[in-house]
Amino acid sequence: MHETFVIPLWADLTAVGLGGVQGALFASGFQGQRRLDLLGVAIIGILIGMGGGLIRDLLLGVEPATLQSDWYLVTAAGSSLVGMLIARPLQRLNRMIVGLDAVVIGMFGAFGTSKAIVLGLPVVPAVFVGVVAAVGGGVLRDVIMGLPVAVMHVGSLYAVAAASGSTVLVLLHLVGVPVPLAAVIGIAVTCVVRLLAVVFDVSLPEQRTLHRRRVAAETGVIPVVRRR
Amino acid sequence: MHETFVIPLWADLTAVGLGGVQGALFASGFQGQRRLDLLGVAIIGILIGMGGGLIRDLLLGVEPATLQSDWYLVTAAGSSLVGMLIARPLQRLNRMIVGLDAVVIGMFGAFGTSKAIVLGLPVVPAVFVGVVAAVGGGVLRDVIMGLPVAVMHVGSLYAVAAASGSTVLVLLHLVGVPVPLAAVIGIAVTCVVRLLAVVFDVSLPEQRTLHRRRVAAETGVIPVVRRR
Amino acid sequence: MHETFVIPLWADLTAVGLGGVQGALFASGFQGQRRLDLLGVAIIGILIGMGGGLIRDLLLGVEPATLQSDWYLVTAAGSSLVGMLIARPLQRLNRMIVGLDAVVIGMFGAFGTSKAIVLGLPVVPAVFVGVVAAVGGGVLRDVIMGLPVAVMHVGSLYAVAAASGSTVLVLLHLVGVPVPLAAVIGIAVTCVVRLLAVVFDVSLPEQRTLHRRRVAAETGVIPVVRRR
Repeated sequence: MHETFVIPLWADLTAVGLGGVQGALFASGFQGQRRLDLLGVAIIGILIGMGGGLIRDLLLGVEPATLQSDWYLVTAAGSSLVGMLIARPLQRLNRMIVGLDAVVIGMFGAFGTSKAIVLGLPVVPAVFVGVVAAVGGGVLRDVIMGLPVAVMHVGSLYAVAAASGSTVLVLLHLVGVPVPLAAVIGIAVTCVVRLLAVVFDVSLPEQRTLHRRRVAAETGVIPVVRRR
Repeated sequence: MHETFVIPLWADLTAVGLGGVQGALFASGFQGQRRLDLLGVAIIGILIGMGGGLIRDLLLGVEPATLQSDWYLVTAAGSSLVGMLIARPLQRLNRMIVGLDAVVIGMFGAFGTSKAIVLGLPVVPAVFVGVVAAVGGGVLRDVIMGLPVAVMHVGSLYAVAAASGSTVLVLLHLVGVPVPLAAVIGIAVTCVVRLLAVVFDVSLPEQRTLHRRRVAAETGVIPVVRRR
Repeated sequence: MHETFVIPLWADLTAVGLGGVQGALFASGFQGQRRLDLLGVAIIGILIGMGGGLIRDLLLGVEPATLQSDWYLVTAAGSSLVGMLIARPLQRLNRMIVGLDAVVIGMFGAFGTSKAIVLGLPVVPAVFVGVVAAVGGGVLRDVIMGLPVAVMHVGSLYAVAAASGSTVLVLLHLVGVPVPLAAVIGIAVTCVVRLLAVVFDVSLPEQRTLHRRRVAAETGVIPVVRRR
């Protein structure tokens, strides 16, 4: 396990905890055809908290680090509970979900790419592992909740944000920046790209222009700050 | 491979076989927008029979035991065929599906937790592996069949049942009970919790109380024995 | 890594490239409730190009070969771009999608079974790994795009085609035919079975005969050459 050289436990657990809060907030706000029960909300919280690390380690072919210690699951479950408790009184729920989401994507992306680099993967797969680790938990969440997969549809720019941060991390590593510093910068880049995309309502061109973008509005949990 | 010390082949194949029958019965009763063909029914049978063990071994980072011998696939495919054949004449189909489901969840949960313990995982991840192994096959089934994921919605209590059995197993192991005996007791606990939940129509509170539970009725395959 | 003895890099990259083109063509033709953006089309291309190999290596419990070199991702991304560029002017789009699909299923099936044989798996799991590698990418695509999973529904015969080719490969290997030659013949068998099924509109019997088959017509991308 090279893991310990790259990702300190406190950093990993921070990502898991923020992911758990964000997942539970997201699921609490869900208003679909069918309600989730409290267990369902907790499952989404744990899934977002644990998913990125599990997917990363499956792709890298190493034992899932999140299952080698009690702390990951305890943190994910506890933070899901926190997310459930603060969901009701919270006024600015959407804004908090989006902010946490950006940080969580950034952390899982940076940790995925860092671990891939340390394990000796070439640069392109290293970026790929980061991107999949960053967006994978959200894809699983959408599939299990029966929502359209956010990363696939117009207006998301999730994957672009994750790829930006992971690419910056890899480039910094190539020019000799230590991995921990490169990871911090990579997290910041992903956060900024993601938040700018939300704030300025940027989206990639649709494959055809017949339908206007509606995904964010329809899912009802991703705020559209400025509509064109 | 520590597997052979914990789970005898006959026990593993029994779980695979019961899972295959249950999956094929479930899929045969499916009345969605689009019909499944016979191959689709067989795929669901094989998925439920094999899924729990595959997910367990992926999480544990070991070679999938279900692919190291011809017997697993032969058993899963054969029992799916049996499930298809007995689906038509069977009068009490729903009752049988629910009963088999409880046993299969119990077995996959107990085997997952047992294997995790033998491989040296801490207790919390050991319970987690059992729960995911127990409910994972059903999640895949629902996603592939386009159904709402049962474990996520009001009235399921799947995960609670699996977690109860796995937790009992871990606790018994901690106080010195041999794993095989603890596993048998764990299976029984999961079965009883699951069946009691169905019989008494117990459900976790919804995240909000606007909608009454409808999932079981809507999917049309999970019987509601007593409605409030 | 036994991989290099079985699957030359050029062959593997050919499968990845054809898969990327096919995936991007498929996603470009998608006319669902919600549009995909250009990134979504690229993701489907990369998913189809990379998916079969990733699933194969996860099942086999080895490091994903597709992440050990930059070439796989570069090929998958580049061929997705090609697929996007040729999608608009192409007149015979459906015919090309189906043809590529048959070749890609054949290659991933044959490579999956070959690698399983070389790693020493018994014959039944070896066929299973081939079938799952062949159809797995398409299942992921359908789930992520929110389509009914093609392999599950009436009229597909995907899995039968993949199983035919993989079985022929295993049988030829058992009678002493070298794996590379057996793989080529297996690819051809899968292609022929799949294309014959499309041309002659063959399907397995439905579980009940109330509904006529509609899947192919509804998804709008699988041509039905002759309807009964």
